[in-house]
Amino acid sequence: MRETWIKAICEQIKPLNEKAMERAKQHLDRLTKPPGSLGRMEELAVQLAGITGDIAGELDDKRIVIMAADHGVTEEGVSAFPREVTVQMVANFINGGAAINVMARQAGASLVCVDVGVDGDLSKSDGLFHRKVARGTRNMVQEAAMSEGELKAAIEVGLELAAQQAEAGAQLIATGEMGIGNTTASSAVLAALTAASAEDVVGSGTGVTSERLRHKQQVVRQALQRHRPDPDNPLDVMQKVGGLEIAALAGLILGCAVHRIPVVIDGFISTVAALSAVRLCPEVRDYLIPSHLSEEKGHRIALEAISLKPMLHMGMRLGEGTGAALMFPVIDTARRIMREMATFEEAQVARQKGE
Amino acid sequence: MRETWIKAICEQIKPLNEKAMERAKQHLDRLTKPPGSLGRMEELAVQLAGITGDIAGELDDKRIVIMAADHGVTEEGVSAFPREVTVQMVANFINGGAAINVMARQAGASLVCVDVGVDGDLSKSDGLFHRKVARGTRNMVQEAAMSEGELKAAIEVGLELAAQQAEAGAQLIATGEMGIGNTTASSAVLAALTAASAEDVVGSGTGVTSERLRHKQQVVRQALQRHRPDPDNPLDVMQKVGGLEIAALAGLILGCAVHRIPVVIDGFISTVAALSAVRLCPEVRDYLIPSHLSEEKGHRIALEAISLKPMLHMGMRLGEGTGAALMFPVIDTARRIMREMATFEEAQVARQKGE
Repeated sequence: MRETWIKAICEQIKPLNEKAMERAKQHLDRLTKPPGSLGRMEELAVQLAGITGDIAGELDDKRIVIMAADHGVTEEGVSAFPREVTVQMVANFINGGAAINVMARQAGASLVCVDVGVDGDLSKSDGLFHRKVARGTRNMVQEAAMSEGELKAAIEVGLELAAQQAEAGAQLIATGEMGIGNTTASSAVLAALTAASAEDVVGSGTGVTSERLRHKQQVVRQALQRHRPDPDNPLDVMQKVGGLEIAALAGLILGCAVHRIPVVIDGFISTVAALSAVRLCPEVRDYLIPSHLSEEKGHRIALEAISLKPMLHMGMRLGEGTGAALMFPVIDTARRIMREMATFEEAQVARQKGE
Repeated sequence: MRETWIKAICEQIKPLNEKAMERAKQHLDRLTKPPGSLGRMEELAVQLAGITGDIAGELDDKRIVIMAADHGVTEEGVSAFPREVTVQMVANFINGGAAINVMARQAGASLVCVDVGVDGDLSKSDGLFHRKVARGTRNMVQEAAMSEGELKAAIEVGLELAAQQAEAGAQLIATGEMGIGNTTASSAVLAALTAASAEDVVGSGTGVTSERLRHKQQVVRQALQRHRPDPDNPLDVMQKVGGLEIAALAGLILGCAVHRIPVVIDGFISTVAALSAVRLCPEVRDYLIPSHLSEEKGHRIALEAISLKPMLHMGMRLGEGTGAALMFPVIDTARRIMREMATFEEAQVARQKGE
C-alpha cells in the first residue's frame, strides 16, 4: 500500500533503544521517591532514554520549527482573520514579536521559520528558510488542494529541514505552524482519516462564532464530498484537503524519527500532521511527545487517534508551536531528575515496606 | 463565628487591584494573537497583575516553602513508608538530593525547609527553620491530633514564615510538605470540610494498595466518628484530625495573601491546607494559583471545593511541592508575554474581522 519513497523513509525509522529504557527505569526506581510517583515525568525520562540512547544528558539544543503556508479555502470565508495575516505574522516571527518568540526565548530554544507556501513575497526576508512550493493551496471546495508533485515537495521540505537541523545539532524539536485557514484544512484531514463528522472536528479556530462556525463545517463537508479521499491513504487525503504546512510538518516529524530526535507535538494542526505521519509510518509514534490540549475542538480526537495524552491543560488555541514550547521546561526537568536526584542508598532514606 | 485572631488576619487581606487587572486585559487584547487565545496564560497574567499591582515585571525571587511534620496516626499502619522517612527526607532536602531540590534548581527557585513537627532531632541541621511545635501529632483515632495551643502555634509558624519571606523579597511562593502519614490526615480534614466520604477522599498515598487502602479508609472513618469535628469550623477540624504541616501551610497561605504574594498550591495536602485557609478567610482565594492535578484520589475534590482548575496533568503524586515548582516556568512565561510580545500596531498585523 505504501508508495516506494514513503517505504524508504519508514525503513530508516528504527525502534527505541530498549536497553537504555531499561536502564532509565532501574535508575528511576533507585531515586528517593515512591516508585512511579513522578508519573508522566518518569514516562518522559524513559522515552527520552529510548530515543537518544542516553538516560540523563542535557538536551540543550532546542528548536521550534514553524511551517507557514496559505490556504485557498480562505476564499470561502472560513477564518476570522484576513488571509494577509499569514505573511504579516511570518514577519512578526522574524522580528521577534510573536507569542512563540517570547516562549522560545523563555525556554532557551531557537526558532526556525520556513516559508513552504505563503501567498506573499518573503524573498527578501532574512532569517527565513525559503522553500515555497506554491503560493498557498487551491480552494479544496473547488479542486484538490494541491497536486501530487506539490504534496511530495512539501513533505520533502519537512524531511530536509529535519536532516538539516539534526546536522546542526538539534537535540529536541517542537512543531509549529502559521497559516490563516489551516484549522479548516486540518479538520478536513482529520475527518477523512478518522471518519469523524465535520461537527466533531470543526472548531472556532482563531475565533469564528456561531453562524460562521456552521459555514465552516459545511465547507469541510463539501470538500470531503467532492473529493472522497481514501481514508487508508494519508497522501491522498493531504493532497485533496490538506495544506502545504501540514504536509511539511508530517515530513518534519518523520525526519525527526529518522534522525532520532524527540519531537514535541503542538496543538490541533500539528497533531493532525502527526496523525498523518503515523498513518504513513506507524514506527514514528514512539518519537512523539505530546504537549498541551488545545481549546480547538478536534484536537482531542486527533490526539486519541494516535494515543497521545496531553499534559498541559492551558486552554490555549494559538498554534505557532506555543503549547509545545511550554513542554520544554518539563522535559528539561525530567532529564535533570535523572542526573541530579539522590538514590535511597546515597541519601540513607528507608525504602517502602512490603505490602 | 471567626475567632478574633483569625478575624484580625482576614482583615489584612485586601481585594485584588482591579485597575491593574483592567490594564492587563487591555494590554493582552492589543497583542498579536486572537483575543483570549492564550487561555489560562492570559488569566494568570491578569491575576498576577491584580495581586502585584504591576502588569509585567519579572517575578525573579521564587521560593518553595516546605513544611515538615510527623503524624501519630502512622501507628495505625496507614503508610507504605516507615515513619523515620520524614526526618530522613528533610535531611535529603537539606543535602539537595530530593526531587524538589532538582525542580527548584531547574525553576531558579530557592527552598525554605521548616521543621514544624518532625519526630526526630534536627536541631543541629543548618539550612532549616527550627519551629518544632511538637514531635508530631497524636494518633487521631485515639485522641485529638493536637491541642488548641499547638494548632495556633502551627498556623502562626506559617504566618511568620510568610512575613519573613516577604521581608526577604519573595515575589512568588510555592507550597510544599513532607510528612509520612499526611495523606491520611489530609483525607480526614477534607472529608470533614466537604462531607465527602472516606471512600471518596482516601487514596493510595505514596503507595499503599488494596487491603491497606481499605484499612486507611477505616482509620479516617473512625477518627471522624470519634471527634465529629464541626464542618463549619476549620480550626476544630484541623485540631482534631489535621497535621502540624497542614496547619502551618494554611498559615503560610494566609500570610502570602496578607503580603500580596501569589502562592502556587501544590497537590493533595497543600490543597487541603488551601481549602482550610479559604474556609477561614474566603478573601484568600484570589491569591491562589493552582498547579497540577495529583494522582491522589481526593485532590480533585479538594480543588473543586475552592474552584481551582489545575493546569498540569502529570500524573504525579509525590508532594514536596513538586507540582507547584513545575508551574514556575509557566508563570514566568505569562509575565514575559506581557513584557515582550508585539502589539498589532507595532507589528503591522491586521486585526480580526467583525463577525
